[in-house]
Amino acid sequence: MKVGIIGATGYGGVELYRILSNHPHVEECILYSSSEMDVPYSNSFPHLHQLSNHILRDINVEEIKRDIQFLFLATPPGVSRDLTPKFQGSNVRIIDLSGDLRLKDRLAYEQWYKRPCVSDDILEHAVYGLSELHKEEIMNADILANPGCFPTATILGLAPVVQNKIIDVKSIIVDAKTGVSGAGRNASQAFHYPEVNDNVKIYKVHEHQHIPEVEQALHSLNEAVGAISFSTHLIPMTRGIMATIYASVEDSYTTEKLLDLYKSYYAESPFVRIREQDVFPSTKEVYGSNFCDIGVKLDERTGRITIVSVIDNLMKGAAGQAVQNFNLMNGYEETTGLYFAPIYP
Amino acid sequence: MKVGIIGATGYGGVELYRILSNHPHVEECILYSSSEMDVPYSNSFPHLHQLSNHILRDINVEEIKRDIQFLFLATPPGVSRDLTPKFQGSNVRIIDLSGDLRLKDRLAYEQWYKRPCVSDDILEHAVYGLSELHKEEIMNADILANPGCFPTATILGLAPVVQNKIIDVKSIIVDAKTGVSGAGRNASQAFHYPEVNDNVKIYKVHEHQHIPEVEQALHSLNEAVGAISFSTHLIPMTRGIMATIYASVEDSYTTEKLLDLYKSYYAESPFVRIREQDVFPSTKEVYGSNFCDIGVKLDERTGRITIVSVIDNLMKGAAGQAVQNFNLMNGYEETTGLYFAPIYP
Amino acid sequence: MKVGIIGATGYGGVELYRILSNHPHVEECILYSSSEMDVPYSNSFPHLHQLSNHILRDINVEEIKRDIQFLFLATPPGVSRDLTPKFQGSNVRIIDLSGDLRLKDRLAYEQWYKRPCVSDDILEHAVYGLSELHKEEIMNADILANPGCFPTATILGLAPVVQNKIIDVKSIIVDAKTGVSGAGRNASQAFHYPEVNDNVKIYKVHEHQHIPEVEQALHSLNEAVGAISFSTHLIPMTRGIMATIYASVEDSYTTEKLLDLYKSYYAESPFVRIREQDVFPSTKEVYGSNFCDIGVKLDERTGRITIVSVIDNLMKGAAGQAVQNFNLMNGYEETTGLYFAPIYP
Amino acid sequence: MKVGIIGATGYGGVELYRILSNHPHVEECILYSSSEMDVPYSNSFPHLHQLSNHILRDINVEEIKRDIQFLFLATPPGVSRDLTPKFQGSNVRIIDLSGDLRLKDRLAYEQWYKRPCVSDDILEHAVYGLSELHKEEIMNADILANPGCFPTATILGLAPVVQNKIIDVKSIIVDAKTGVSGAGRNASQAFHYPEVNDNVKIYKVHEHQHIPEVEQALHSLNEAVGAISFSTHLIPMTRGIMATIYASVEDSYTTEKLLDLYKSYYAESPFVRIREQDVFPSTKEVYGSNFCDIGVKLDERTGRITIVSVIDNLMKGAAGQAVQNFNLMNGYEETTGLYFAPIYP
Repeated sequence: MKVGIIGATGYGGVELYRILSNHPHVEECILYSSSEMDVPYSNSFPHLHQLSNHILRDINVEEIKRDIQFLFLATPPGVSRDLTPKFQGSNVRIIDLSGDLRLKDRLAYEQWYKRPCVSDDILEHAVYGLSELHKEEIMNADILANPGCFPTATILGLAPVVQNKIIDVKSIIVDAKTGVSGAGRNASQAFHYPEVNDNVKIYKVHEHQHIPEVEQALHSLNEAVGAISFSTHLIPMTRGIMATIYASVEDSYTTEKLLDLYKSYYAESPFVRIREQDVFPSTKEVYGSNFCDIGVKLDERTGRITIVSVIDNLMKGAAGQAVQNFNLMNGYEETTGLYFAPIYP
Repeated sequence: MKVGIIGATGYGGVELYRILSNHPHVEECILYSSSEMDVPYSNSFPHLHQLSNHILRDINVEEIKRDIQFLFLATPPGVSRDLTPKFQGSNVRIIDLSGDLRLKDRLAYEQWYKRPCVSDDILEHAVYGLSELHKEEIMNADILANPGCFPTATILGLAPVVQNKIIDVKSIIVDAKTGVSGAGRNASQAFHYPEVNDNVKIYKVHEHQHIPEVEQALHSLNEAVGAISFSTHLIPMTRGIMATIYASVEDSYTTEKLLDLYKSYYAESPFVRIREQDVFPSTKEVYGSNFCDIGVKLDERTGRITIVSVIDNLMKGAAGQAVQNFNLMNGYEETTGLYFAPIYP
Repeated sequence: MKVGIIGATGYGGVELYRILSNHPHVEECILYSSSEMDVPYSNSFPHLHQLSNHILRDINVEEIKRDIQFLFLATPPGVSRDLTPKFQGSNVRIIDLSGDLRLKDRLAYEQWYKRPCVSDDILEHAVYGLSELHKEEIMNADILANPGCFPTATILGLAPVVQNKIIDVKSIIVDAKTGVSGAGRNASQAFHYPEVNDNVKIYKVHEHQHIPEVEQALHSLNEAVGAISFSTHLIPMTRGIMATIYASVEDSYTTEKLLDLYKSYYAESPFVRIREQDVFPSTKEVYGSNFCDIGVKLDERTGRITIVSVIDNLMKGAAGQAVQNFNLMNGYEETTGLYFAPIYP
Repeated sequence: MKVGIIGATGYGGVELYRILSNHPHVEECILYSSSEMDVPYSNSFPHLHQLSNHILRDINVEEIKRDIQFLFLATPPGVSRDLTPKFQGSNVRIIDLSGDLRLKDRLAYEQWYKRPCVSDDILEHAVYGLSELHKEEIMNADILANPGCFPTATILGLAPVVQNKIIDVKSIIVDAKTGVSGAGRNASQAFHYPEVNDNVKIYKVHEHQHIPEVEQALHSLNEAVGAISFSTHLIPMTRGIMATIYASVEDSYTTEKLLDLYKSYYAESPFVRIREQDVFPSTKEVYGSNFCDIGVKLDERTGRITIVSVIDNLMKGAAGQAVQNFNLMNGYEETTGLYFAPIYP
């Protein structure tokens, strides 16, 4: 299989490259960039010196259709809206890592993303692919909308209790924390080292574009889900997302029973690891890997549960899950090329 | 005024020293330590080379009574319980920065701190001193229990809406983030650099000893307050606490009205800074200072407000507030020796 | 005295503001910016919320001449070249924190800075002001070139042994490490958080524009000084410079004798702290302060000495030294408004 | 092949485990620890939850001899001295990652390590194994002393110019910078997060135990090598070593010629990457990988060259090189299980 990556000079793109260049079913990986072309990829990423002799190519749709069978779009917002229609009717299957194709409600897209939405036609075809929850649809997708980083951690953390209707969905509050690589590789004062180091910032309060994505996905598991509270914080670290989730739970549940539920819900999910009682995961414990680790505990004093869900935002939150979906879409073993340990420390 | 610091070799102690050594009403500052004595203070803290010629003294209660009029206890849990009774009846007034004297309910203390409580006599005398809320009692206190770092940020963030009864107090959820200096200067694997760097950890889930302190203080503002949800996260930074607080608010409130309420509530509080609409403080914006900065915003979709309250855990969360209380107890201007700008970046 | 800061929205500018707003001889501090004007200063720096009610002013030379007596230029390279001539003949004395006026050799300036040099007239008037070494000239200066951050640490580290001719000046090698704030507040990929965090980079190898400044200053102490080896490394921290300096020393010297020499050389310099035998300073030990801390040790195996000199790049390396020079130029006590302890931790 | 790791609960041990658990020729990897036994390995390292079902075993020499064919010692100083003799005459081949067997001169060991040296018998058998330089001896070794982290970066950086006698070996100065994981997993105040964060420290000035190791290795390449200057700095980052090396070079050399020499010297070394002219590696560019990246440049003004050599201290500086040597000792391809890209960012 020959695959392509558009947006190879971003962090999502280079993480895709790290995985795909070792993937047993990928014969060749062609790299495209709109900002740089005809230059060696290792100029952009010197850590690939001698490992990659790729030359970045311009985005020429006809050549892409001719040269590859599978395309990853690791592009900024708005690009997929323009690009995906050009591949309709071709043999190229697509995974889009941007948010352009995730929301089924085009008005919601336009409201939260503040830009025009993709065509209805593309929207209908695009499958929202959180690997653990939508395996069937993913397998048959031609255009796949890869979930966002915050939604992945949040939805995996909530799915068992939302789908089984054991929490009050109106009570859901998600306090999310992210490393800075989630903001991409383009510099701006907000991510300038001296502004971020030794600092915690909250941002996009009540306005993060991942909110409707989380609500849409949870709603599909349980129709009672409406608006949830969701906030995002920038943490002085490179990688990692932690979603700390609070919700009121049915009286009859204990921590033990909750953990059993989670373990059984994810029994067939090799990348979700449920922690033992009284143990909570930290973000570093999934660093560089495709795992989503989850801890749960009931607070008997308040009747609420605390769910902690962590991922590496560039892996399970972007490139890793994209390759997991690529595996599913092609009928490969779900873990192919992805089942390696986190780096610690 | 001659003052003493017991526990001068800890982070709280050295921050007290930084402030008190420039305080216009402090004639002399004597430093005590149980772990090191008869050695120069600057051996423990080389950043004080040539600035301090203090020799650490052993803790001799009789000498202390003779030498100083005011004592700061910046000691580990359990020490104040033993020390404070020895100063009863003396002329030495005390500010205790540990948690030993904060809880009025001795059973709660024993349950959350897992150690025996101080005597009833001391408990009755000890005034819980969050400077902005308890000014009168502080002025008349002989033994003052200085609030904890998390409680300070949380209570200041919640007081206006709790006291004015405009939120559903059952809905309060506090997601707190702290820098590592809050854990003190003693090394342990949990705070070993490679374990903390590039990592977010949740800890003491549902079990943090600051929970009953927050509840006690909020309850005193509004009797409806019972158990709240409160969690703590370790962030890879040296200083700073952010409390992100969620609560359901009465229908009639807008962000604008909430901000007016906060500004008016803290109109006489020089160290509380309420941010403008749509602006939220980050922890670095109070670094090294005694400020508590607060941002508030209504989420119309959920009917909840998000309150963000930040402090420097060693300043407003410990030594700074202790000196603010010292000023109040002595009838000095509240801001004496404390009203300096944060360091940025 | 009314003073002005041009370039107040940069890191050097805001550090000047932090010091000058507490300086007993500064009646008013007026802030100018070419990029922002007529907006509150605290918009640029929210940590100054309620502390500063300054409105940033446009740079109007005639108004500046009328309104202030003393001007600090905390501007990017090239700006002082244009601005300083406009104040000639006025009553405004100037301290320039940029590199524009430091090199007496205009060809060297043009070669290393790669831009045209200031006029000869200004060059002749401008006094290079490393406070500890050029006290007399500073006192009489009207235009002062404030030293660079790396040169300050390096020259103070080397002056005693260079001036006393006890090292082989051809053997001098300086390996310098800096925090990221030295690069200023403008964002670029090189200082983007994910690129800097958990990373050490060498940069401008053999080409740093501070090299000729160091050589010029050392040469003025000892004519034998020619080209030296000098390299700069970017460290994942906000503030701090360490210069690790190696040089071959005369046979007869011991570490003890060297330390005596340093202590005696800096006996009248309140901001230089010489450490005891076998103790070396770290950058955090001067954080936020105007100190330069120095450790020295002879390696008997190689006949070389290792000198370690640390400063806070924004303080002694920029704003702090500028105010120290301001004190000297105005006949104030050298330490006025500057003699406070580092923040630790 | 069945292999064992003694010291599996340290950072070197767990990095060995990360590599060996994916190594195609390793059938089983048994983990030993003196501090913990009969507990699951993933208790010590929760990032291995569900990935490792190993139970830590006690160190029983007879059982080890029976169960494995190859042993890695990732143990603190002094342990190998006691352990290695017990395996003499057995079929177990050993790679020791500690410094115990590296110095051929037992007096030097005792002077620099300040503890008794291993027996002469072991010393004679132990092969010092810097993979790129000692391939032949490594292939035939039964006991291999794996090089230290600083020596690996330094020796690889200097070997081409030392062996080819084009620098003045008396002029060599090495200024090394390291991440904190090099200090191991045991907590101490020196590596307590608030003490390390935002700080650069020099340590063990002129006394680092890696100095004689570097000198011994360079001397074996060029008998003129005697004492060199070598210093070590602690950097606020988890992984990575940079050795910045200065030396006077023969007149006839240009940067171009030097780079040619380096490329040709390492033409057969898959893990050494020589950078192009005017490009220098940063530590993050080898993060998590076994590469050693080198940049070189002549300073025509001083006649000195600056060599920058970077490694990941836990990989090429410890576990990675150990597996590279394991491959060589067993006749496997040198890159087996090791040739993967660095993680970036």
